Amino acid sequence: MRIAEVVGSVVATQKDARLAALKLLVLRVRDHENRPIDEYVVAVDAVSAGPGDLVLFATGSSARQTELTDGKPCDAVVMAVVDSWDLGGTNVYEKWKA
Amino acid sequence: MRIAEVVGSVVATQKDARLAALKLLVLRVRDHENRPIDEYVVAVDAVSAGPGDLVLFATGSSARQTELTDGKPCDAVVMAVVDSWDLGGTNVYEKWKA
Amino acid sequence: MRIAEVVGSVVATQKDARLAALKLLVLRVRDHENRPIDEYVVAVDAVSAGPGDLVLFATGSSARQTELTDGKPCDAVVMAVVDSWDLGGTNVYEKWKA
Amino acid sequence: MRIAEVVGSVVATQKDARLAALKLLVLRVRDHENRPIDEYVVAVDAVSAGPGDLVLFATGSSARQTELTDGKPCDAVVMAVVDSWDLGGTNVYEKWKA
Amino acid sequence: MRIAEVVGSVVATQKDARLAALKLLVLRVRDHENRPIDEYVVAVDAVSAGPGDLVLFATGSSARQTELTDGKPCDAVVMAVVDSWDLGGTNVYEKWKA
Repeated sequence: MRIAEVVGSVVATQKDARLAALKLLVLRVRDHENRPIDEYVVAVDAVSAGPGDLVLFATGSSARQTELTDGKPCDAVVMAVVDSWDLGGTNVYEKWKA
Repeated sequence: MRIAEVVGSVVATQKDARLAALKLLVLRVRDHENRPIDEYVVAVDAVSAGPGDLVLFATGSSARQTELTDGKPCDAVVMAVVDSWDLGGTNVYEKWKA
Repeated sequence: MRIAEVVGSVVATQKDARLAALKLLVLRVRDHENRPIDEYVVAVDAVSAGPGDLVLFATGSSARQTELTDGKPCDAVVMAVVDSWDLGGTNVYEKWKA
Repeated sequence: MRIAEVVGSVVATQKDARLAALKLLVLRVRDHENRPIDEYVVAVDAVSAGPGDLVLFATGSSARQTELTDGKPCDAVVMAVVDSWDLGGTNVYEKWKA
Repeated sequence: MRIAEVVGSVVATQKDARLAALKLLVLRVRDHENRPIDEYVVAVDAVSAGPGDLVLFATGSSARQTELTDGKPCDAVVMAVVDSWDLGGTNVYEKWKA
C-alpha cells in the first residue's frame, strides 16, 4: 500500500455496469516523507474518505478484496483513512491536527 | 485506475483466438493535472469509447473483470468514459465542453 | 498491452518443467510514437511471431490466459502480431509496408 | 521480493473491516547495495518485525498468501526478517552486527 | 520475464511458515543489451541456479506457478537458466563461454 491525499473526484456515466454506484476518488500520492509527488491514482472509495484526507490505497487484484469491489474492473481502492503516521520515532502526520 | 485520452487504434489479424472481435484502443496517459505524458497503453474497449474521449482504464487482472474481457489475455481495459474531473475544488475537464 | 518489436530469442534447457516447449522471444518495447525504447521483455510466443514483427504483449496474470501459457510460470506473452497502428488519424505502422 | 528497513508505522481506525487487527509497517526500500532509496511501501507485518529490522516484502497477489493476509485488501506483506545478505561473495548485512 | 545475474543470497530464519526451505537468490537485472542495471530482485530458486548464472525470472502471480512456489508469499521466481541469448541475429551471451 501507499499513502495519498484525496484531491478530487471523477464522474463517468458511460461505464461498465459493474462499476455502477462506486465513488471514484482522485488521489495524489505522497512520498516517504509525506510530500506530494507528481503521481496520481483514481481509486474506488471503500471507506467514505473525504477531500483532504490522507488515505491508504491498495492496487492490483488486492483492490478487489473489499465487499464493495469484489469482482469489479477496479485496480485501486481506498481501504483506510490514516489517523497518524510515524517515521523513525517522529510523527509526520496526525489527522486531528491536519 | 488512471485517466487517458483515446488517441488511436491497433489492428491485428494474427492473434490468440480469445482476442477475436475485441476492439483495441491506443491510450495516451494523462498526468495529475490532465496533461498528456509520454506513456501509452493498448486497451480493450468495453464501453464504446471514441477518438478524443478521456477515459478511465484499469490494468492487470482487474482488466479481466468485464463481461467482454473475462478469461482473455488482456491486461488493460477501458471501462468508463470520463464526464467530468475535479481537482482541489476546480474542474479540470468537462466532456460536454471538450 | 504494449507494442514491441521481436528482436531476439532466449534458449534455456535447465528450466521449470512447465516451461517445456515454449518459445521465448526477446521484445524491445516501442514508445507512444513507435520509437524503440531501452526496455525489453522476454515473452512466450503464442502466435508464431517472427523476427522484426511488431507485436502486442500482455503481462502479469493476463499472460497466462492463452491455451499455451495456462498455469505456467510465465508473466509475459505475445498474443497478437500488429497489422496496422493508427495515432491521431495518422498511420504510424503498416505491416505489409514494413 | 525486495529488501527494506522498517522505519515507521501507520494507524488507521476508519478502515475496511477485513483490515482489523493488522499491523501496518512503513518500509523504506534498499537498493542493490543496501543503501536506502526514496521509495517506501506500507506493508502488513506477518512476522513480528521491529523498528530498524531489515526485512523481505512481497507485493501484489503474493502479499495475500499468508494466513494473516488471505482474502484481505492488502498488496504488500513483510514475510521475513533478514538475518544476512551476501552479494558477490561479500557480506553486506548481518543482523546480529547491525 | 526478464534476464538477471545471480549475484547473492539472503538468509532469513524468522519468516512466514510457507517460506520454509526455499532458497532466496539476489538477482541483478540485465538491460536489453546484457549490461547490469541498478535494479535487483530477491527470487525463489526453482531450478538450482548458481552464482554468476544468467537466469530468467518471472514476477507477480506467475511466480507462484511452479510446484515449489504454489500458494506461497513469493512474488519472484527463477524458473530457467539461460543457455544463450540472441539479439538482432547476434549472440550476446553463451553460457558455456561465460
